[in-house]
Amino acid sequence: MIQKIHHVAIAVQSLEDALRFYRDTLGLPVHEQATREDQGVKAVVLTIGQSEIELLEPLGPDTPVGRFLERRGEGLHHICFQTDDIDKDLAELKAKDVELIDQEPRQGLVGRICFLHPRSTKGVLLELAQPPE
Amino acid sequence: MIQKIHHVAIAVQSLEDALRFYRDTLGLPVHEQATREDQGVKAVVLTIGQSEIELLEPLGPDTPVGRFLERRGEGLHHICFQTDDIDKDLAELKAKDVELIDQEPRQGLVGRICFLHPRSTKGVLLELAQPPE
Repeated sequence: MIQKIHHVAIAVQSLEDALRFYRDTLGLPVHEQATREDQGVKAVVLTIGQSEIELLEPLGPDTPVGRFLERRGEGLHHICFQTDDIDKDLAELKAKDVELIDQEPRQGLVGRICFLHPRSTKGVLLELAQPPE
Repeated sequence: MIQKIHHVAIAVQSLEDALRFYRDTLGLPVHEQATREDQGVKAVVLTIGQSEIELLEPLGPDTPVGRFLERRGEGLHHICFQTDDIDKDLAELKAKDVELIDQEPRQGLVGRICFLHPRSTKGVLLELAQPPE
């Protein structure tokens, strides 16, 4: 079911500052930039091997990432595992009483996604994603 | 220089509980277990694609992972990037005034490693690792 780490997301105050480190100092190439008004974030995606680093800057304080920064400061925000069958996985997770944030897959930045609740994952905000074929 | 995400580490209260989710529910295979007295942790390593998930349980409260749990609770602890030349990388990071936890590479769980300080990485405890050839 799970194939690889699709991405690791980092919450930052400023994409510009964060790019100075992740792109310029570490040398990771940028392959996508996007503003997602509905999710309240600006994102920059960098490539690392077969995975990605997603830098997330909130569009304002009253957004999920804005509240995360207020509560915990900058740092690791969530991890995303790639699956080849998100419907099957979600059905199995429900059958095993895993607490879900999304009861059904929805369209996200990287394909069909759903988030699992940190209460079921040892404190980790965990996303599953099935990219388009 | 940087080739891939080598692993993502998760701090947990109990490896046994965490394995119930990451191994049994998600189905990730375990490929290594180790107790590191010097680092104050018991670790279980699971395979995910070309990367790994490292579950870390502290050997006691007065250890780095024990203090992390006390301060922040269970969750994402650090991320490790694999490099093919840690000496060169470390020299470059020093030249760019990146704040380091380890001034020189040392022998770690997965090869020659060093940790960068979260002050230089937007709040992320970041490990570089050069596995043995």
